[in-house]
Amino acid sequence: MKNLIVASTSTIYGSSFLEYLLEELREHFQGIQTLLFIPFARPGGISYDAYTDHVREGLEKLKIEVKGLHEFEDQIKAVEEAEGIFTGGGNTFVLINELQKKNLIEPLAEVLRKGVPYLGTSAGSNIVGPTVNTTNDMPIVHPLSLKALGLIPFNINPHYLDPDPDSRHKGETRETRIKEFHCFNDTTVIGLREGSWISVKGDQMILKGTHAARVFIKNEEPFEADQGFDLSQLP
Amino acid sequence: MKNLIVASTSTIYGSSFLEYLLEELREHFQGIQTLLFIPFARPGGISYDAYTDHVREGLEKLKIEVKGLHEFEDQIKAVEEAEGIFTGGGNTFVLINELQKKNLIEPLAEVLRKGVPYLGTSAGSNIVGPTVNTTNDMPIVHPLSLKALGLIPFNINPHYLDPDPDSRHKGETRETRIKEFHCFNDTTVIGLREGSWISVKGDQMILKGTHAARVFIKNEEPFEADQGFDLSQLP
Repeated sequence: MKNLIVASTSTIYGSSFLEYLLEELREHFQGIQTLLFIPFARPGGISYDAYTDHVREGLEKLKIEVKGLHEFEDQIKAVEEAEGIFTGGGNTFVLINELQKKNLIEPLAEVLRKGVPYLGTSAGSNIVGPTVNTTNDMPIVHPLSLKALGLIPFNINPHYLDPDPDSRHKGETRETRIKEFHCFNDTTVIGLREGSWISVKGDQMILKGTHAARVFIKNEEPFEADQGFDLSQLP
Repeated sequence: MKNLIVASTSTIYGSSFLEYLLEELREHFQGIQTLLFIPFARPGGISYDAYTDHVREGLEKLKIEVKGLHEFEDQIKAVEEAEGIFTGGGNTFVLINELQKKNLIEPLAEVLRKGVPYLGTSAGSNIVGPTVNTTNDMPIVHPLSLKALGLIPFNINPHYLDPDPDSRHKGETRETRIKEFHCFNDTTVIGLREGSWISVKGDQMILKGTHAARVFIKNEEPFEADQGFDLSQLP
């Protein structure tokens, strides 16, 4: 049974890395000795080692050992044998490119379908949907494909931002961008605001955290889904 | 001799489509009877016809006939025979994908190298650089390649936005994204604020408009280039 936390962000304003999720993670990763961390998204170009250390620090209170996937010689085996997995944020193109080059997409999807508990934040949440076509990131590398793990039936837009009514900027709002996505694609998109996450248990997908999510269904007006909303009822 | 206007945006706050550029365009497109408009970026998913009509309206005062590239049966020939060309903004992935599928990249680059006057705004400016890896757009389609026209030696980041010191949002700032780009790429990036453009005449590339531009050179601190700065001196 799938057991995923799909979070908009690792960090909310005024709080340290993963702090707002810590109690949820204590339960989510209960009984786990070692957590496998996938550092490939490299936020700000940080090294794999530095990023993994950052996660060790953030999760210190949980008393779980954190191992970076890059530390393993056989990375497919490391995924297959993982007790729990966390993919951190950064650049989604860089992340999916690495996972593809290392043939890790299918092994990762398979263990997660079997129920290995997973945490994704930002880019690590983008990859849980069918594709990463709704990332906010800059395409600083060009992967062969934007296909992702397909563990949930809709795409995520993390760090979802409402249009600023006072803005004088003429760049596209997030809502405009997602509507453009629907000119070329059918997949429903969940705009996840920072502080919110989706708790996936088997086929149940409940919105949790501090904000409503904005739901974009093709050819329909976007709407707000409140905390507790079961996203599995969406088309 | 190349003769390009590479603009951050088509529209600035409180002003109509292309209004702020009109006097510059009157000179730039002087003596031209018909302007070829490339509508493929489809902002907000607008149709090619509607987008082309919008351009006709915006340029009405210049008394130039505007033809949409989509109106031609032989689009390569239309590009080769164009007196002047304008590529409008929208989604850069959609734009480059269409240009690639229609084998228009090389014909377009060739006529622009020969001196056909060109206006690019936003996505239409992104494609003037070596690649579109520094677009802000959402990858709603997945082109085979992000290679672009390569008419100038640096990449453009249009609609450049400064970090907001009061922001509580934890998504990446534009500066962070461009610095991430430099972890994987060497090309210099020009962050063009709305209201600014680059005037390219042969090898000369002068910053014009109402704002300084932010220049990102790999392994160096970003800096501000004022109006009048000749970008051709950049590495």
